[in-house]
Amino acid sequence: MKIFVTGIAGFIGSSLAKHLLTLGHYVKGIDNYSTGNPKNLDKSIECKDGDIRDSNILKELLNDYDIIIHLAAQTSGEKSFEIPEYDIETNIIGSLNIYEFSKICNAKLIINMSSMSVYGNVTKNKIISEDYITNPISVYGNTKLTAENILGLLSKRDNIPLINLRLFNAFGPGQNLDEMKQGMISIYLSYLLKYDEITVKGSLKRVRDFIYIDDIISSIVSIINSDKFETNTFNISTGTLTSVADVIKILKSISGIDKPIVQYDNTPGDIFGFGGSYKKIKQKFDWDPKYSLEHGIKTMMEFYKGK
Amino acid sequence: MKIFVTGIAGFIGSSLAKHLLTLGHYVKGIDNYSTGNPKNLDKSIECKDGDIRDSNILKELLNDYDIIIHLAAQTSGEKSFEIPEYDIETNIIGSLNIYEFSKICNAKLIINMSSMSVYGNVTKNKIISEDYITNPISVYGNTKLTAENILGLLSKRDNIPLINLRLFNAFGPGQNLDEMKQGMISIYLSYLLKYDEITVKGSLKRVRDFIYIDDIISSIVSIINSDKFETNTFNISTGTLTSVADVIKILKSISGIDKPIVQYDNTPGDIFGFGGSYKKIKQKFDWDPKYSLEHGIKTMMEFYKGK
Repeated sequence: MKIFVTGIAGFIGSSLAKHLLTLGHYVKGIDNYSTGNPKNLDKSIECKDGDIRDSNILKELLNDYDIIIHLAAQTSGEKSFEIPEYDIETNIIGSLNIYEFSKICNAKLIINMSSMSVYGNVTKNKIISEDYITNPISVYGNTKLTAENILGLLSKRDNIPLINLRLFNAFGPGQNLDEMKQGMISIYLSYLLKYDEITVKGSLKRVRDFIYIDDIISSIVSIINSDKFETNTFNISTGTLTSVADVIKILKSISGIDKPIVQYDNTPGDIFGFGGSYKKIKQKFDWDPKYSLEHGIKTMMEFYKGK
Repeated sequence: MKIFVTGIAGFIGSSLAKHLLTLGHYVKGIDNYSTGNPKNLDKSIECKDGDIRDSNILKELLNDYDIIIHLAAQTSGEKSFEIPEYDIETNIIGSLNIYEFSKICNAKLIINMSSMSVYGNVTKNKIISEDYITNPISVYGNTKLTAENILGLLSKRDNIPLINLRLFNAFGPGQNLDEMKQGMISIYLSYLLKYDEITVKGSLKRVRDFIYIDDIISSIVSIINSDKFETNTFNISTGTLTSVADVIKILKSISGIDKPIVQYDNTPGDIFGFGGSYKKIKQKFDWDPKYSLEHGIKTMMEFYKGK
């Protein structure tokens, strides 16, 4: 199939593109390299250096595509409070631009990467399904939800299947260790490898549902491989919760490095933590997560040691 | 007090500005004249010709203001599907710009005009309060809700009181009769006065909660006159429902003009109809609506006869 990926040079995009190539798909994409990096990409992958906020750049890329996978976004809750305008422009206007692009490209399916942030402050430790009330408490969560909703209305009108994937806490090799405001495991790993102490913003008791990169990619592949494309929304999650304290314990244990933890106040819009049920995507596409947190962190550690 | 009004040359803005002047306030504002008209404004009122999407124009207007009343918006649900980008830029980015402007102007209160469209497709004929679930079904409803939510998060962080007014179906003298995609009563009146037939998009059984311009203005004034500004959200409504068929009947009866009704399909994102309870603002600011639909339509008719 012909597949177009936005944010293709990012953590998820680059890994996904590589995998789609090995499956024999034609893959092309766009990235503004704000958090992604051209070095992440195999040379065989065509990536346009451009910003999804700029509809003129997208015009240059018009072509027939079977599937559009929209990953490009401002993804930091913390940054979304510092620069809400950038967040709105990238996550809402940018997504609208990609929607219009998909329509002209005759896409048979749009996969829109959304976020567990759309749920907001769910009851502590709860494992929720996709019909749980959405009540985002960060600018980021709001822009992701608005993109889901506006694209949902337009795709319904135009009869283009749209699948929203509400991603929980992604981690794995390829995460940007220089990005200290997004990605919990990569941030702590970065502190562990490069700083004198591990900065934790918020309680050590907070929990997260961590999902490994290879599982994220297999979820997308399971959708692409399905015989019929239909509008839907799925959690991409494990349903398993791990505390911040335990994550840091595992990082220390696997790396053999011990550094002191220094705690600060929560970042705005941060939450205690909850998990996502993956029952719906399991039923629909027979996908389930395969990798443990320990496996993922080991693989990550080896990846960054080699750098 | 020093009051800054966005959308000051519009239907509500111009009438509000005039009233605020008579109360002795200092009033200034901005309008891009996209639907507003400089002719609506008394010459004594300073209005900057500019667009709230342009933060540079707002920089020229920085000053100390006690209250910012934010009315400027793309307000047509129908148009929001035709040009979603303009809707997002005006209603979300524009509102964010006005929020930042308010902050620098040391505003003690921001009044953000929102819309009953944030509720979406409520059960037919229901009269709802402000805690009813928000589930917008138009791009417009989504952008208004997102503005409420993002401004809510930022104003909480910055400790600036923000009052959202969820306006139901506004009508009254001064509505733009050339605008055929927003304002139910003004649209039907325009058909009645200027066309051969009355075009109705959707069922005649649909209902609306119509609120008269003088009531809208008195609601804002009751808030401004309060001794303490606190963040809150209120319906501006009457709690009374009137069907489309009955509205047209009243329009015909008061004008003495009879023209045939021609029915078409609903516009996208249109709803059957519901009303708003005004109990909350009644309790908080002792406001209630005073004017009947008949009175409002009579006054409107006299206004346009004189034109």
